[in-house]
Amino acid sequence: MATNRQILLDNRPEGEATVNNFKLVTTETPPLKDGQVLVRHHFLSLDPYMRGRMNDSKSYAASQPLGEVMIGGTVGEVVESRHPKFLTGDRVVGMGGWQEYSVVDALQPGALRKVDTTHVPLSYYLGAVGMPGVTAWYGLVKIINPKAGETMVISAATGAVGSAFGALAKARGCRVVGIAGGPEKCAYAVNELGFDACIDYKLHKDMYSLAKALKQECPNGIDGYFENVGGMVLDAVLLRMNAFGRIAVCGMIAGYDGQPLPLANPALILINRLKVEGFIVSEHMEVWPEALTELGTLVAQGKLRPRETIAQGLENAPEAFMGLLKGKNFGKQLVKLV
Amino acid sequence: MATNRQILLDNRPEGEATVNNFKLVTTETPPLKDGQVLVRHHFLSLDPYMRGRMNDSKSYAASQPLGEVMIGGTVGEVVESRHPKFLTGDRVVGMGGWQEYSVVDALQPGALRKVDTTHVPLSYYLGAVGMPGVTAWYGLVKIINPKAGETMVISAATGAVGSAFGALAKARGCRVVGIAGGPEKCAYAVNELGFDACIDYKLHKDMYSLAKALKQECPNGIDGYFENVGGMVLDAVLLRMNAFGRIAVCGMIAGYDGQPLPLANPALILINRLKVEGFIVSEHMEVWPEALTELGTLVAQGKLRPRETIAQGLENAPEAFMGLLKGKNFGKQLVKLV
Repeated sequence: MATNRQILLDNRPEGEATVNNFKLVTTETPPLKDGQVLVRHHFLSLDPYMRGRMNDSKSYAASQPLGEVMIGGTVGEVVESRHPKFLTGDRVVGMGGWQEYSVVDALQPGALRKVDTTHVPLSYYLGAVGMPGVTAWYGLVKIINPKAGETMVISAATGAVGSAFGALAKARGCRVVGIAGGPEKCAYAVNELGFDACIDYKLHKDMYSLAKALKQECPNGIDGYFENVGGMVLDAVLLRMNAFGRIAVCGMIAGYDGQPLPLANPALILINRLKVEGFIVSEHMEVWPEALTELGTLVAQGKLRPRETIAQGLENAPEAFMGLLKGKNFGKQLVKLV
Repeated sequence: MATNRQILLDNRPEGEATVNNFKLVTTETPPLKDGQVLVRHHFLSLDPYMRGRMNDSKSYAASQPLGEVMIGGTVGEVVESRHPKFLTGDRVVGMGGWQEYSVVDALQPGALRKVDTTHVPLSYYLGAVGMPGVTAWYGLVKIINPKAGETMVISAATGAVGSAFGALAKARGCRVVGIAGGPEKCAYAVNELGFDACIDYKLHKDMYSLAKALKQECPNGIDGYFENVGGMVLDAVLLRMNAFGRIAVCGMIAGYDGQPLPLANPALILINRLKVEGFIVSEHMEVWPEALTELGTLVAQGKLRPRETIAQGLENAPEAFMGLLKGKNFGKQLVKLV
């Protein structure tokens, strides 16, 4: 048993999400039953999909119930165990939520996974070698299915998904062009992440201006696009897609608040015979082992060097989450809890 | 040699296409060279894709050059031949264009194909057992890939593509719901074409009203959608798509004139993990033999009974084409030339 601070979803956002949608409470963890494990969280993952869950309306993820601990990925250590396969001190990754401890029913398949921190830092299992990395892998490998020499573009290029996408696409012999906000992120994408080029969307006031920049950085057009944001960026990319291009739709963060953002010219899907496919990586668990193996290897080889933005203390999670939604983070957004 | 009346594209439409974009001329066919065949056209096919070609702008089909014979599918008979495989009297299908005769270089693979009119009327090779039929087949089989018991929806349901789609989807054990304009077309879809239901889009003033009608006729949601029109109909269907639904994008006729029609809520592609794929059937010649065999069999068995709207005489082709663009035709739009 342990004293456990938790963050609950207290009320739903009207329009933009705010820190006032959340409530911090303190409880005691319940005693363990057979098969259960008590995990102390070292890091909490903050991810854009959480914004969708805060709404009551139908979203691509189930709605987060009011008054319950916010859902979220966590890494930590086992501090008490009534399951034979988990020992005190084991490093584990799971979906512990926005709290300092979680009681996990380790009998449930996939609820808790032991990880090796010899070559990969623990926090990376929430990013490059975790859900965001596998997300990049699935969109690139299973939807876009790139050929060497093709041109790949990704929005939110310096985020956790974007960093992994860049390394995975370069490993397949592609030209990789990122889209990110601000000169610092763009320089990081090129200098640290290995992107061939990165476009600062903040320099472009409309889709035509951004499409012109894309034309310059993608002289052979765009064959594959990994969509993290939607809105003007998607409209601009569509103007530059090659025939038979593939678009993996992973996020539409720009449209989460308020009204849906329309797509300016859907006829381009026909004109260029595009495939546009939405996906949620948690529905494709069969690819995780293969994807995690490749991602772990890229990290160990130094070919994938993700950056992290780390907030300190559970009480700062809501503020850090607001920052993530506004693009203030640089790389994977985490909250350090110990 | 023969006296040949031809319709040329004289000038490009500004906004809506009109009969004044075309010009009728009379010429003589040139003498045949080795390997060439002179075909007298019995029927000329009119198809929505032709509107796209009338524009100068980038479209999903190459632009039709000004001052040249309008492109188009034709069926007819060989009246003179300098190719050993084609004999006078052979019934043939090809891309002869908007003219009474064509000189075809029969050495070019795929330029001219002999057809059997024992069980299938000659004109059907321009419709149900031709390009439109294969279009329906490709979208259904290769993109939507339906399972028995799933619900399929198609817009422009009573057109040449829609008729074939209905028969092909019923043959695969699906529920098939059409969308068409007016009570007469809807009754025909259900009574003659075998659709389970057909919705008259003219009764619905916005996407929400149409989506409500779709909910009624598709109580288990929509798994596959064949898109022929775009605009409000696509927006409404997107609201009713099931998770993992597939949309084959074949046409966006509503957007051909003037400005592109936006898509109201592209985030639904992500929320419902949809696959949306555009295609042009002429880029998939490898499927034609298999598709034509199935379509011919359905016609011979009386399971596919397409309707035709036939204009008489080449001079009436432009007027008939305007009617097609406005949905005045009922089933496959043809021009009879003999």
